[in-house]
Amino acid sequence: MSSDIRATYEISGEVARAKERALSLAVEQTHEFPPELAPVAAGGAVGRVLGVEVQGPELARAELAYPADVAGGELPQLLVVLFGNCSLLPGVRLVGVELPPETLAAFRGPRFGVAGLRGLLAAPTRPLLATALKPIGLDARSLASIAYEFAIAGIDVIKEDQSLANQRWAPFEERVRLCADAVRRANDETGGHAVYVPALNFPVDLLEARISIALEAGAGGFLALPGVTGFELMRKIAGEVPVPIFAHPTLLGSFLSSPGTGISHGLLLGELMRLAGADASIFPNHGGRFAFSAEQCLEISEGCRRPIGPLAPIFPAPGGGMSLARAPEMIEFYGPDVMLLIGGELHRGDRTRNAARFRELVDGL
Amino acid sequence: MSSDIRATYEISGEVARAKERALSLAVEQTHEFPPELAPVAAGGAVGRVLGVEVQGPELARAELAYPADVAGGELPQLLVVLFGNCSLLPGVRLVGVELPPETLAAFRGPRFGVAGLRGLLAAPTRPLLATALKPIGLDARSLASIAYEFAIAGIDVIKEDQSLANQRWAPFEERVRLCADAVRRANDETGGHAVYVPALNFPVDLLEARISIALEAGAGGFLALPGVTGFELMRKIAGEVPVPIFAHPTLLGSFLSSPGTGISHGLLLGELMRLAGADASIFPNHGGRFAFSAEQCLEISEGCRRPIGPLAPIFPAPGGGMSLARAPEMIEFYGPDVMLLIGGELHRGDRTRNAARFRELVDGL
Repeated sequence: MSSDIRATYEISGEVARAKERALSLAVEQTHEFPPELAPVAAGGAVGRVLGVEVQGPELARAELAYPADVAGGELPQLLVVLFGNCSLLPGVRLVGVELPPETLAAFRGPRFGVAGLRGLLAAPTRPLLATALKPIGLDARSLASIAYEFAIAGIDVIKEDQSLANQRWAPFEERVRLCADAVRRANDETGGHAVYVPALNFPVDLLEARISIALEAGAGGFLALPGVTGFELMRKIAGEVPVPIFAHPTLLGSFLSSPGTGISHGLLLGELMRLAGADASIFPNHGGRFAFSAEQCLEISEGCRRPIGPLAPIFPAPGGGMSLARAPEMIEFYGPDVMLLIGGELHRGDRTRNAARFRELVDGL
Repeated sequence: MSSDIRATYEISGEVARAKERALSLAVEQTHEFPPELAPVAAGGAVGRVLGVEVQGPELARAELAYPADVAGGELPQLLVVLFGNCSLLPGVRLVGVELPPETLAAFRGPRFGVAGLRGLLAAPTRPLLATALKPIGLDARSLASIAYEFAIAGIDVIKEDQSLANQRWAPFEERVRLCADAVRRANDETGGHAVYVPALNFPVDLLEARISIALEAGAGGFLALPGVTGFELMRKIAGEVPVPIFAHPTLLGSFLSSPGTGISHGLLLGELMRLAGADASIFPNHGGRFAFSAEQCLEISEGCRRPIGPLAPIFPAPGGGMSLARAPEMIEFYGPDVMLLIGGELHRGDRTRNAARFRELVDGL
């Protein structure tokens, strides 16, 4: 007899039907069989409704229990159980997950987390600073020279834009060697610990080879794109590489964009990122180019931190159109365990000076 | 100088701002840099707005062009260009994609497609019949015996439920050996060509080993879950295995559930599935347990078939709560190049007789 995975869903629409819909969810997400026809043997594998609470004229909250053995400690099937076919149903949103110890035990989670990343970057208490290496269209030498400037100025994490793949302007291998080398030289000069973080935007066939090339060149982390590659591939890579994983939300927005469907911000960009091995989760801060609310950002930050079994807390990394002017308020909002990501705006005016001011601003706190 | 990828987006909201929003999309999806600061060198890598057409008081349609070299013929980056950060913006829906020959040339697409699958199943003109092997919770021997019954009755494709992973009730290796063997015995008895299709619901670490085990056991295809594993992994597997790929939409629903955001049904479950190597695309038929409209289903079917460079057409495979009673109308609706999927309902009453009637119904057309 296994323990239960608990999942909470918001069910939008006529509340009179909420209970019935919760019951069919329990079936849909597990044995997906007409309940009255299910063989007795399959009974131990079916979800159960623990409770349905009406929250408004068109909104109910249902708590379901799935036997842990239905997921079997494997991430792909855990995602299928939590939200697989659900995602195709109207008006169902996954808003809470509690995993039993036996399921959690199957996941390593973040290898570094907040403490590990702070150690690696020799930044025991202050907010971390990150920027994006861009734009696509520059050659590898120019990108490396920008990386050098940022590292000299004291930016901790110099991550590539998610769109840097293997384009002709800056082919992967050349780019990674030059950028890693540039950041190493900067660290040698300053005694700093900046890391260069290439994007894992690869065909799967080339994944292992490119990761080896990057590690050998001196990459200090990887930018994972779980929306593109699946959370499972990020989990696998995080378990294998000796450097931290920075998760980017590209292509994940559709899970978040409609209020009554999808997965909550805190679960998707906080808890799931963490379960799947990310050490920091990048997301669009409120008031930037995107449309996340302050509340949603706080939810992500909570998901990065709240106690979940043995999983280390990770850094929320708000970005997306942020500027130096916003930095103090962001630190106020998220607290010191935050990785501030400022990309394009550092290029406005004198790049080196902006980057140095970014660092001073945080050192001065 | 490369050709262009063309992408069409629906932009919801104030139409007065549509042009400005289309312009920022072009930037967001390529060099993601304040345009006035972008180095001249990056100019060749930026998207362009070809046109914006107002379609209603709150709806505009924007056509964008991205240099093909920005995607570089790689599927992960192609997805990032088409909808990566877009997915995080409110009121933007991807509704059309035209790839230039140089991008299409990088994709093999479906290995079998309609003609290949018809050859494999010795079904030159009739609709194909599929069912789902379930429920989770049964032991491997019981699942194999159900598979045998279905194959004897003349069902072409006996695919596993997407949730069959490696659970204790029917561990992968035992299940696959018994089911493949059961379908082979049935084929030997009937002279039929039924295929057993295990689900690719695996941790990535075990992927190669499990695919080998399944192929060696005699699996006649694989059920891919691109929503869970990413489209890229499906593409890779489709390029490597000598059997057809059946794509399942689990976890993809959030791209479809909100009218003004996400990706259109025809693109996501038709064209993208095909580009990434699926030979059939499973989706919930209108009027079943899910909420797709007839128009959306037709759009998927169109995406499976419309001429796209050298990509073979594939089977639309509507299912999701279908019954024998619906079959004639489904054939009328989709035409003969359809794979009809009936799962749980075949178990209502006498399973063997239902399956045989399913086949008779199609043979009698």
